[in-house]
Order: sequence, then C-alpha cells, then structure tokens
Amino acid sequence: MSASLRIAHVAPVATSIPPPKSGSVESMTSLLTEGLVALGHQVTLFATGDSKTSARLVSIYEHGYWHDPNMWPWELYEMLNLAAAVERAREFDIIHYEAAYYPMSLAFTRLSPTPIVQTLHHSPSEAEVALWSRYPEAPFVAISNEQAKLLSGANVVATVLHGIDTLNFTFRETPDDYLLFLGRFTAGKGVLQAIEVARRAGTRLVLAAAENDYYRKRIKPHVDGSQVIYYGEADFAAKVKLYGGARALLYPIQKREPFGLVLAEAMACGTPVAALDRGAVREMVDDGVTGMVFKTLEEAAAGLPRVYALDRRRVRDRAVERFGAGRMVGEYVDVYRRIVEAYRGRSAS
Amino acid sequence: MSASLRIAHVAPVATSIPPPKSGSVESMTSLLTEGLVALGHQVTLFATGDSKTSARLVSIYEHGYWHDPNMWPWELYEMLNLAAAVERAREFDIIHYEAAYYPMSLAFTRLSPTPIVQTLHHSPSEAEVALWSRYPEAPFVAISNEQAKLLSGANVVATVLHGIDTLNFTFRETPDDYLLFLGRFTAGKGVLQAIEVARRAGTRLVLAAAENDYYRKRIKPHVDGSQVIYYGEADFAAKVKLYGGARALLYPIQKREPFGLVLAEAMACGTPVAALDRGAVREMVDDGVTGMVFKTLEEAAAGLPRVYALDRRRVRDRAVERFGAGRMVGEYVDVYRRIVEAYRGRSAS
Repeated sequence: MSASLRIAHVAPVATSIPPPKSGSVESMTSLLTEGLVALGHQVTLFATGDSKTSARLVSIYEHGYWHDPNMWPWELYEMLNLAAAVERAREFDIIHYEAAYYPMSLAFTRLSPTPIVQTLHHSPSEAEVALWSRYPEAPFVAISNEQAKLLSGANVVATVLHGIDTLNFTFRETPDDYLLFLGRFTAGKGVLQAIEVARRAGTRLVLAAAENDYYRKRIKPHVDGSQVIYYGEADFAAKVKLYGGARALLYPIQKREPFGLVLAEAMACGTPVAALDRGAVREMVDDGVTGMVFKTLEEAAAGLPRVYALDRRRVRDRAVERFGAGRMVGEYVDVYRRIVEAYRGRSAS
Repeated sequence: MSASLRIAHVAPVATSIPPPKSGSVESMTSLLTEGLVALGHQVTLFATGDSKTSARLVSIYEHGYWHDPNMWPWELYEMLNLAAAVERAREFDIIHYEAAYYPMSLAFTRLSPTPIVQTLHHSPSEAEVALWSRYPEAPFVAISNEQAKLLSGANVVATVLHGIDTLNFTFRETPDDYLLFLGRFTAGKGVLQAIEVARRAGTRLVLAAAENDYYRKRIKPHVDGSQVIYYGEADFAAKVKLYGGARALLYPIQKREPFGLVLAEAMACGTPVAALDRGAVREMVDDGVTGMVFKTLEEAAAGLPRVYALDRRRVRDRAVERFGAGRMVGEYVDVYRRIVEAYRGRSAS
C-alpha cells in the first residue's frame, strides 16, 4: 500500500501555520504538512488565511484569534474550522486533527464517514479522559509514552514524538562557558533548581524567558549579572545562538510534562542536556549520548563534567535522526495507513 | 398537520432540569419540555441524570458541571451532550438546542439528517453573528425582537418570548408599601437609578440580590434600613413574597437586554412594573396595563402614582396570557412544524 493518501490536516486557528513567533503546535503542524506534501500525499490544510503552505489551504478565517479580540469565543472558531473538514469528509481518506486544547473531534466521531485521528498536545486530567471514554473507538496519537499513560481507556493508536526543523538549528562545535535555562518562568519548569545546580557547579547560568510575576518574585533576587545572568526573552535567532553557545542545557523539570521541546532544540545545536528524570525526559534523552538524566540536583551538579564531555557532533546527529521531520512524517503516514485500513475493515463488516 | 412530533430537546448540562435554585434557561427548558409532553409530543430530553421530567431522559452525565470542578472544560461537556442527540438524529423530527452560551450546533448543521433549531439566550456581538453567517440556513429562535435585531444575516425563524410557570407566582391583591428592585447588582441593571427613583418618590425601596463587590462599593452606602432596605438574596419563595408585597417593581434597566424575566414574574404576582424604555422592555410590558414605560428617571418618579393605580388583577391576567407556558409551548410547536415542513421540502428538491 504505497498510494498517496488524501489527508485533511486540521490546524488550530489561533494563529498562522507556521506561527509568526512561537507556537509549538503550529510549528509541528507546519512541519508535518510540508513533509506529507513532499512525500506526494494530497494534503488539505484547514488553517487561517495568512498561513503559508504547499498543501491546498482551506481558510474560513483571514487570521487567528490570538490576533483579534473580536474572534470570541475561540472554541467556536476551532469547532467551525473542524466542522468545515468533516463536512467534506468524503473527499479525504483521513482527517488529522491537531487538538490544540481538547479533543473536540470526539463530537464528530460518529457523524463523519471518514476516520478522524487526533494528536493531543497537553496532559489531560483523569476526569477529562473519563469523559472521552464515551468514544472508545476514536483514535488518538500520543506525543510521548508519558502522555499515553494518562490516556487509559482511550484508543491510543501510536506514540509519535514531535519533530523539529533541524535545518534551522545551527550546529556549534565549541561552546562558550555557560549553562542555559530556556523556557517559561514557572515553578514546574525548575528554574530555581537550575540556579541551584549552576551554583553548586560554580558555572555561569544564562536564563532566557519572558519576564513575569514568578520571575520578579522568585528569580530576580538570584540574578547578579555574573553567576546568574538574565538574558530576557529570546526570539528564534537568539535562541539558536544561546543553545549553541551553552556547554549544556539545564532541564531540572519539576512537573511531569508530556514533551520537552527545548531538549530537542538544544540537542539539534549539538548542545547536550542535563535533565532530571521526570515526565517524558527518558524518552527524549539518550542517556550518555545526547545528555544525561539525573535523579537529584546533587547528582546533576556533580555529573556536569561528564555532560560536557559528550561529543557535540554525535549529539547533533542523534537529534537529527530522532527529532528530524523525516522520522515524524514517516510515523504519521504509517498511523494514517493503519487507521484507514482498520476503518475500511470495520465499514465492510 | 396535527400528528405528534418526535422532538429531541437538548438542555444545557450545567445543572439539572429544572434547576435546584436559579437558572432561567434551565427553568424555561423544563417548562417547555413538560408542556410539549402534555400536548402529546414524543419528547426526549438530553440533560443531566439528576433532572426530573416526564419526557424520556437521556443523560450522559450524572450531574451538571456547576456542581463538579472536575467537569472541565465545560464546552466539551456541552458538545458531547449535543452530539449524543445528533448521533441519533434519525429518531427525531427536530432537534431543539437551548444554546446556553453560543450556538455550537452550527458545527453540526450540515452533518445532521434532522434539522436543528436553536434558541439563543444571550445578546451576541456583531463579530459573533458574522461568524455564524457561515451557516445561513441554520434556524434560530430569538427570545425577543430586541435580540432578533442583533442577528442580521442569521436565519431567525421566529421570536418566542419565554414563558414562566405562572401557577407558582401567587397573586396578591393588596400590596405593602414599598418598591422592589430584584436582580443582580450590576451597573447595567440600574440599581442606583432605582434608588434615585425611590428617593424622588419618597417611597421605601427593597433591594433583593446577592451581595457582591458592586453592592459593597456602590450600593451599600445608600442602604439606611428605612428608605433603602437590603433584603439579601431571595430564594424562590421569598421572591414570590417580595413581588406580591411590592406596590411596583422598579426596572430602570441601563443595558439593552434581550429579555427581563423579573418583569414577567412580578406581573404574574399582580405587581405592575415601572420600567425604562430600553432593550426588550416594550415587548414585555403592556404600557398602561401591566406597567408603565418611561423615558427618564424623572418621568418614572412622577409617574409612579399612575403605576400604583393599575388594576393588579388585570396585571396578573395579562401576565398569564402573555407569559404562561401555554403560549410559549404553542409557539414552539408551530416553529417546529414549519421547520420540519421546510426541511422536507428542501430534502425532496
């Protein structure tokens, strides 16, 4: 079965595909759509009119609701974008819904003549998943096994780690002399723990994230401009530079997260990571190759020399292999084919 | 055409039908469902499991999301309740959706083999209505002509004023000597204006609503226990007593509202209303019969003696005629029949 597939790819309509600035779901959606087109599939992207794609673009809205306070309630905008795809379901072999927030497509599961698969992008609560279990046939793709564990009762057909556009992350052989924390300033991201590790190791730490209340109250008192340096919020170009110049990315994550995009991005620049063993970390970090996974902050601080000693070229190569678009696109094609096949079998029976 | 209709009545799932305390949409839904059953129609009510109805009850949830913080996001609960009705659309002649917040059913309009009519219960913005105009065929019922004016471009098939259960509102021939303000404490409801009217008229005013910030900051300074009295929040029995004892209900509404439930309730107790001419007021008040409609606060204060002079028995009778369940139920049956007929014609062509 190598025929091309007719795929409706339903994006969030918060902003354009790809996004003007940040937006991990939108970036991943763009990467997947372009990759599918490159493989010869017939892709229709349901996204805002200011999106840029080589797929066929169907736009109900000129722009996204992040940019227009009149576009409210946002849920209805998402629903009608999804409905537009389901209404022409017979034109497609599969509808792939990037569930930006919650799996609205469940409501269409039994009304669509074409199967709808949805990728979840958050960690749902037990109550949420219990609600979804009303539709045990609805296929989900998890973005990590960590996330899949939360989805008991749902029909998780595959786990597909996100890809990133590794071409845009410049490799750097020789870093500068600092550690990097990049991410939002929240307790869950472990920024206080990053400061502690850097202090114990006696190494400079650069913090890159948007200023917020948590920063002002909890982090700023630690910023001294020499040991702990606040860079501010980094745009894409600055991020790539910061990654490449870091001896290691510190990722002392406190909350169990379903994915850690910064891990993949740092590695793609050749920068190894020093991470705590929580959430999806072990799925993303090849311990001893692209970084090291530690149980405690003490271990992390003591283990940094071994992290620095990792071969940055090898870090980069492994990152391209594991988080390059090619792997993700291929896995999604496989998921689509399996669902189309299963659905055909079910319809015929 | 007098055959009974197979009606799916889709309620909000925030709380039970009827609601334990307040909830105008839930009360109206209950009244309509029971009235339709009484007329011999085959009604299936999609509502929470703790609802009480003589219709067939289909419940996906034991209780409503107002009572359970785990039931989140609430939009998905509403969607899946609506989807449950659309999934069995062929069992019904019509699906009537009480759009508690926004018209989710638009997304199902072209996927349902049975027409879906929705009653709107809020005043939508222009941007909202522009969004809905993607489905020009989707039938709406407006709850007043005032609201219908906001729906240009939408297919408003009828205006049906809400009914109330007039049996529960006890008539009182001779009132006590006070004016009543009943409603939420907000600037839009005109509570400061009610105080001004009562002062000018030199008559006692009773305020009945739940305490909130607006009350503490703006209203409390006016409460003196003799001229302006704060009753607190009234439960249903207290409300009926307060209405019946009032010489008139003051309704100096500032915001243009699509409906004024307290107007109908006061009238049903025989209490005339003194209202400002805004929003749906003229549609609800028979000027000179059930109350008087004024242009200014000065006119209202000066006109109160004429309001007191209205025949309370006649106020009650007119209220029963205009806001009794019978009128509302009959009008909805007519709406259903017209939509079913039009839909049949369309499907046949």
